[in-house]
Amino acid sequence: MNKIVRINMADLTSSTEPVPAEWIGLAGRALTSTIVAKEVPPTCHALGASNKLVFSPGLLTGTSAANSGRLSAGAKSPLTGGIKECNAGGTAARMLAKLGILALIVEGLPKEDKWYSIHIAKDAITISEETELIGKGNYCLVNHVQARFGKPVGIMSVGPAGEMKMLSANISVVDPDVHIRSLGRGGLGAVMGSKKIKFISIDDAGTPPVMPKDPVKFKAAARIFAKTLLDHPVSGQALPTYGTNVLVNILNEAGGLPTRNFSSGQYAAHDKISGETMHATIVARGGQPSHGCHPGCQIQCSQIYNDKEGKYLTSGFEYETIWGFGANCCIEDLDDIAQADHIMDDIGVDSIETPVMFGVAMEAGILPFGDGKGVVRMLRDDIGKGTPLGRILGGGAGQLGRIYGMTRVPVVKNQGIPAYDPRSVKGIGVTYAMTTMGADHTSGYAIATNILNVGGHVNPLSKEGQIDLARNLQIATAAIDSTGMCLFIAFPALDIPECLSSLIDMINAHYAINLTGDDVTALGKSVLKIEHQFNLDAGLSKEHDRLPEFFSKEALPPHNAIWDFTPEELDTFWNF
Amino acid sequence: MNKIVRINMADLTSSTEPVPAEWIGLAGRALTSTIVAKEVPPTCHALGASNKLVFSPGLLTGTSAANSGRLSAGAKSPLTGGIKECNAGGTAARMLAKLGILALIVEGLPKEDKWYSIHIAKDAITISEETELIGKGNYCLVNHVQARFGKPVGIMSVGPAGEMKMLSANISVVDPDVHIRSLGRGGLGAVMGSKKIKFISIDDAGTPPVMPKDPVKFKAAARIFAKTLLDHPVSGQALPTYGTNVLVNILNEAGGLPTRNFSSGQYAAHDKISGETMHATIVARGGQPSHGCHPGCQIQCSQIYNDKEGKYLTSGFEYETIWGFGANCCIEDLDDIAQADHIMDDIGVDSIETPVMFGVAMEAGILPFGDGKGVVRMLRDDIGKGTPLGRILGGGAGQLGRIYGMTRVPVVKNQGIPAYDPRSVKGIGVTYAMTTMGADHTSGYAIATNILNVGGHVNPLSKEGQIDLARNLQIATAAIDSTGMCLFIAFPALDIPECLSSLIDMINAHYAINLTGDDVTALGKSVLKIEHQFNLDAGLSKEHDRLPEFFSKEALPPHNAIWDFTPEELDTFWNF
Repeated sequence: MNKIVRINMADLTSSTEPVPAEWIGLAGRALTSTIVAKEVPPTCHALGASNKLVFSPGLLTGTSAANSGRLSAGAKSPLTGGIKECNAGGTAARMLAKLGILALIVEGLPKEDKWYSIHIAKDAITISEETELIGKGNYCLVNHVQARFGKPVGIMSVGPAGEMKMLSANISVVDPDVHIRSLGRGGLGAVMGSKKIKFISIDDAGTPPVMPKDPVKFKAAARIFAKTLLDHPVSGQALPTYGTNVLVNILNEAGGLPTRNFSSGQYAAHDKISGETMHATIVARGGQPSHGCHPGCQIQCSQIYNDKEGKYLTSGFEYETIWGFGANCCIEDLDDIAQADHIMDDIGVDSIETPVMFGVAMEAGILPFGDGKGVVRMLRDDIGKGTPLGRILGGGAGQLGRIYGMTRVPVVKNQGIPAYDPRSVKGIGVTYAMTTMGADHTSGYAIATNILNVGGHVNPLSKEGQIDLARNLQIATAAIDSTGMCLFIAFPALDIPECLSSLIDMINAHYAINLTGDDVTALGKSVLKIEHQFNLDAGLSKEHDRLPEFFSKEALPPHNAIWDFTPEELDTFWNF
Repeated sequence: MNKIVRINMADLTSSTEPVPAEWIGLAGRALTSTIVAKEVPPTCHALGASNKLVFSPGLLTGTSAANSGRLSAGAKSPLTGGIKECNAGGTAARMLAKLGILALIVEGLPKEDKWYSIHIAKDAITISEETELIGKGNYCLVNHVQARFGKPVGIMSVGPAGEMKMLSANISVVDPDVHIRSLGRGGLGAVMGSKKIKFISIDDAGTPPVMPKDPVKFKAAARIFAKTLLDHPVSGQALPTYGTNVLVNILNEAGGLPTRNFSSGQYAAHDKISGETMHATIVARGGQPSHGCHPGCQIQCSQIYNDKEGKYLTSGFEYETIWGFGANCCIEDLDDIAQADHIMDDIGVDSIETPVMFGVAMEAGILPFGDGKGVVRMLRDDIGKGTPLGRILGGGAGQLGRIYGMTRVPVVKNQGIPAYDPRSVKGIGVTYAMTTMGADHTSGYAIATNILNVGGHVNPLSKEGQIDLARNLQIATAAIDSTGMCLFIAFPALDIPECLSSLIDMINAHYAINLTGDDVTALGKSVLKIEHQFNLDAGLSKEHDRLPEFFSKEALPPHNAIWDFTPEELDTFWNF
């Protein structure tokens, strides 16, 4: 990867430049955050001409390293008002890497009120007016686009939600079987929509394989690395069998499964939505319990979930989504949740923000708790069509809370809090409060050590050790998010020493450099500090590094836990 | 005024306490801001149990001093997220003063989902469940309440918007003729609605007149003070004749009348909505061109505006409202605007936030520019009834902008920018950016010196001198807002030395103290600093002391002026 491609939507041109010296060694999140921090004015309007949307594959993307195919996207988030990086699998990252594109930077806004698509191939970048697919959902779009090119191209697209610049709009990519995966959080679909780009397609035809500088060393390290993924019980057994949804029963047992808009930590009907039930349902209906979201994925935590007739209903059916509509909205029917998941993928909205928002909407009386059919209808007919109600629902939990005057609104920096209650899993609460991303479990997944006993154990109900835990995990995650690796490699990386060492060996063999573990830690720290400074300059002061008031006032059953970190304690997170 | 009354909605009790030593000498804004800063946690939810709603008359309220009957209300604002003080005329302030109540502090949230009213009389404070008037508009309410008591009581009430906790909801008071005036800005009606209070009624029967400690000195000073109001051309002639709407033609001429959602500084149809046209229309229809909003008002800038049949349509028909729907929404028919004004008073929404929001809504395509009938319909049928569209519209300009992905959204700290374009009247731009209140012209009315040549002249198109101007005006205003005086006394105060000296003489004679001009300045500075610290602690860092990006990017006709203050220049505002 030796070039940076810029697309200027203001004059509909593209340009290619070599990677500047200061960006060498950066990729994925490290690079998107570096570029956003350097080139986007922190106080700019996130949907205005000054924001930039940056895509970057990881350091190892395109190689034969297992699970290295994640694509990062970065921009100023219209949802949080701060910096944002989110990443997903799919095929686009690998194709960008094969084309040698380390970063794709989309700048400016078009002068005319027209929609565009961008096609990136080996010898040409084409920006075309798009009319046929405007207003269409992602499933329709990806099939049309692949048919248009007559082959599997990589795709980054927005659904109707992104076209309407809704704050929950995400960016979709396709997996190797042309199912939808999402760069989900922070409303980056609205940024792409503001630039009037319906989709970007990528064709890597004619490119050579990505070759390490030292193939022998690389191969040896890759083999060790892959083995650690297989050997660890989470990445090798739990995730391939039950997907991420293995967590429903685990979190319910731990009393940390947020239920009925974060009013309890246990859900009576947890069995109906659990990973075990899902697995049995998938098998009974002829679906696929295991499936990879990107080429080279070895963990295979995705799945194909069929409906009662055995027809494809959804894939990438994640714990967060199932928790969000299940426990948090009290919807007991997994098929309703699967249908909601399909529609969210199709219209292009974040499948965490959206169910968190529906939990608040149910408390506001917009629809009853448990109304799965109502959720499906509102997703399709309101959010998908942009009715006034749909505009409200499409703006996320924080916005809905403000519109209906609600006080129990689980957001940090205006982003919905995911599937682990911070009162009874305090490590993840520190991550929610302090991450630069707004409430985001993936930025420092303390569940590993608080609940799964991966990387040791820190008592989830005690404050002791949580800030150090969250800090260390966030530093490590910022580095992992820069490699192109799936975050789930963190499970073996926390328990099996050869995992991290072989990962570093692969990077060193690929680039013929000599990174150490300390270098990787330093990279993670540097990424966090760059992001934090952007947020401060954007007006997200330390008072925004806080959980909503109700977590400190309402005790959560069954442990009657409250959120009891002081502001001063939380602020020590940044002592590094 | 020797007592503080607290209403605790959590247990539906009231209590009375003497004025603590540290609050002696404070009233109006100085007291509401002091109490909010001391007792409300800055990061609390503005609609939660921790916020407090504080009412306070001014230092001279209840006396015979001209124009001294303003009522201040303070709380954490759900609209801006910062501290808020707003004030209005009406009869309530005088009645509170006669009852000896220096501050009324409403705390907590009721346990049950019921609505309440509060009645304050000489010997008793009664908190009652209210059912009859729930869902009713303010006009219906005030007539019912006065009929219920069989006499003119003071009233603070919320309309349906406040009941629904909309962020543009205001608090209404009645003028001496039972017309509606409003504590307009910052969504304090939502705070009152969150506490489930439909109205507070006040009966001052049995109270003695408020007597100065030195009646002779007071009377002499009051006479001088009143004369200065009459002598100044703005307070003595322009405002009584044309009301605040005298400004339409003046601002249009200056190129600072924001038109079509702040895209021009001049409005072709300005004559149709001008103060001169309004005056002629009022006279022709048998209305009242001059009318006072509170007992003892001598400026009489209010008016009674009748419809074509000569029936009462609205009163307190202000320049800001007429500009907002007129130039900014391009509605040429003054009767449509008057009808909109009536409905806004009735449903209880801020008549600045609402038209600024409609300007953005028109640019978003929700209704066409110029559609006065559409505005009236949406006010009545959507905002008034809380449809999803009404919930969107009732949340103010910033919220609508986020929901529809708009970039040209004229707000500071999420509060709509009033009727003077900051690009071509730069002094008011500094006030908008730097005031603790969110965009608010009344907090430092630089129009006086930029446009009206009151208090000297500072060229509105140049940056030179504007920060000093805005700072000095904001300091003076914070002091005036603490006296109970109408802000329009600032016109003579800026030009006629006897105005300010007689004001201070009145305070000294009333309280038998020896304030100097320096003391008054020190009070103003202290109020601003208290408010600023609250905002910083609430997370409104200096990055929030900025105008929206588009003012720096788009030149405003006819002067092609842009907003060109640097952040560093703006931050010098706080150098005192």
